[in-house]
Amino acid sequence: MTMSPDRIIPTRHLFGPGPCNPYAEATAALGLPLIGHLDPEFIARMDRTNEGLRVLWGTKNARTLPLSATGSAGMEAAFVNTVQSGDVAVIAVNGLFGERMCEVASRAGAEVVRVDHEWGTPVDAERVAAAHPNPTVIAAVHAETSTGVLSDIAALGAIKGDALLITDAVTSIGGMPILADEWGIDVGYAGTQKCLGVAPGLAPFTISDRAFERRVPKPQSWYLDLGLLGGYANGAPGGQRAYHHTAPVGMVASLEAGINRILAEGLDAVTERHRSAGKALQDGLQEMGLELFAAEGYRLPQLTTVMVPEGVDSAAVRGYLLENFNIEIGAGAGEFTSTVWRIGLMGPNANPASVALLLGALKEAIAKA
Amino acid sequence: MTMSPDRIIPTRHLFGPGPCNPYAEATAALGLPLIGHLDPEFIARMDRTNEGLRVLWGTKNARTLPLSATGSAGMEAAFVNTVQSGDVAVIAVNGLFGERMCEVASRAGAEVVRVDHEWGTPVDAERVAAAHPNPTVIAAVHAETSTGVLSDIAALGAIKGDALLITDAVTSIGGMPILADEWGIDVGYAGTQKCLGVAPGLAPFTISDRAFERRVPKPQSWYLDLGLLGGYANGAPGGQRAYHHTAPVGMVASLEAGINRILAEGLDAVTERHRSAGKALQDGLQEMGLELFAAEGYRLPQLTTVMVPEGVDSAAVRGYLLENFNIEIGAGAGEFTSTVWRIGLMGPNANPASVALLLGALKEAIAKA
Repeated sequence: MTMSPDRIIPTRHLFGPGPCNPYAEATAALGLPLIGHLDPEFIARMDRTNEGLRVLWGTKNARTLPLSATGSAGMEAAFVNTVQSGDVAVIAVNGLFGERMCEVASRAGAEVVRVDHEWGTPVDAERVAAAHPNPTVIAAVHAETSTGVLSDIAALGAIKGDALLITDAVTSIGGMPILADEWGIDVGYAGTQKCLGVAPGLAPFTISDRAFERRVPKPQSWYLDLGLLGGYANGAPGGQRAYHHTAPVGMVASLEAGINRILAEGLDAVTERHRSAGKALQDGLQEMGLELFAAEGYRLPQLTTVMVPEGVDSAAVRGYLLENFNIEIGAGAGEFTSTVWRIGLMGPNANPASVALLLGALKEAIAKA
Repeated sequence: MTMSPDRIIPTRHLFGPGPCNPYAEATAALGLPLIGHLDPEFIARMDRTNEGLRVLWGTKNARTLPLSATGSAGMEAAFVNTVQSGDVAVIAVNGLFGERMCEVASRAGAEVVRVDHEWGTPVDAERVAAAHPNPTVIAAVHAETSTGVLSDIAALGAIKGDALLITDAVTSIGGMPILADEWGIDVGYAGTQKCLGVAPGLAPFTISDRAFERRVPKPQSWYLDLGLLGGYANGAPGGQRAYHHTAPVGMVASLEAGINRILAEGLDAVTERHRSAGKALQDGLQEMGLELFAAEGYRLPQLTTVMVPEGVDSAAVRGYLLENFNIEIGAGAGEFTSTVWRIGLMGPNANPASVALLLGALKEAIAKA
């Protein structure tokens, strides 16, 4: 067996749907000494990290923490803690991650009422609210990674009734405002590898007191049981931390550094940076004669979906970009694999240089690939 | 809110039950450029990592991979993929992690038949095999992190009959031989933060063809569904990788580097290094007049359990070590919280300098704390 430790590692421009290139601060934190998961210094770090996450989520929820797995596990945690056999989950489906919610909720035992939307369009809050008279949960994706579409979560929150509102914020957190408390989000989950600018591996999570009180008493997942995780992250009522599992201490340090980086720049400035980079990219693509996929008015700046031109080989262009420019962009999701590209400008990549590089390289790739 | 990025980060000697200090190579890998999870370079890295894991597991199992969460999620994956309502799980309990297996198996719907052992003693294979005539799975912990005890998994494998054998190798992998195929292990899970010398965050996992064929067709966990994860890690039958979730690409790079580091030294040499450091520590503790907790003949070299002397405040000693020497050791588990210390010399910490440091510092701490 050969396992050479000295192979060349390419320096990619990660302009796909994630991971993006991390903020330098988030990477640097991974090189600092590891601290044990029960060390007072780590507990203080977890507290600071959770406090930073509260700012990004726009919440005062005590139970706000990074779960020890990737964003998809955050989705699973949201459902296994809120629904069980006999409960009704109304799920807005306008892309791959809404589809996935149906699968995950169904495995948690819920009766799933799915409300389908054309891919590329936003969630219609009225239709979702009308789908069932008395659901246990209503769920929707804020920023659909598969289609590049933004949906109005506040509109859903306003008409959710007694249901708990679950929101996927994987691609929005850290790149655009989220106001969980104001919008009425009861359970939110996200990932670290998009606009937070941190490597994948954690799922920032928040749950309201209201949702926590109604939680499934003994979820089918021990690992994602929020009743046990409360003691792990925030201390039991007496203030004592309870051992649940070994926290991924290095990744938490990196997340803290990424959050610090974002807050140092300021949430408004970070939002504006993502907005203006996305706008410049979308304008540039249209000037090249390309057609955007997501419905106008609902386009995510941090993740642009664009139609592959007639007669162009989608995979060949992506290969050309990777080989010649070290640029990664994403294929489309689901049935749009070969007809849509997904271009992310997230975290540190949301800047004018990335836009110029991508537009120049893509033009050449389409011509020559 | 103050989130200072420039606070001092202590350089700890992580001599507790894990995480240990990582190998320098594993840390350095985290500073290198991130690669996308669908990048051909990352797929090649995942293949190399899985090949290295096969060496450490002592297996030819095609389905050998790092799950994208910590070791406890590995335990959950082992059970949710092998047992469901009505299945019988015979579980050997000789410490905290055997206890946890019962809880996790029960949440997966299994009828749990627990075979209790006195903490500090090894698993009695004959008793376990006699506990039920026809169990679906038999499960045991190879190296009990809570008690510092090694159990003979090969003895269980020899008499498992038709049952699948699940083994927790969290604290053994990378520090002592595991021969999964020879011993008859059908499903094994581990963690990265012990003898592998990598930060916590992944669960090295292996499952035999026999176990995979019998797997639960649609496990309650989507995130840990091995039927879906097969495509993610090893390619579908046609060789195509399927997107399941975003792999924690940075952590996988670090794991690959840690495995390379271990294989470069050689498994025999690494085993001997852990053995001799553990022996020197245990000899030294006994020379100080301390009494070891784990039964003689079954003591893990990489994780030593020692009785707190009469009249000594366990927590005060641990605090003294942390404050004065930057040394972390662990409290006991379960009912032994204040009567046992757990001292790990794992990964790069398994060396004579760590032994000398720990013994000198502990002597002072006991005298002065």
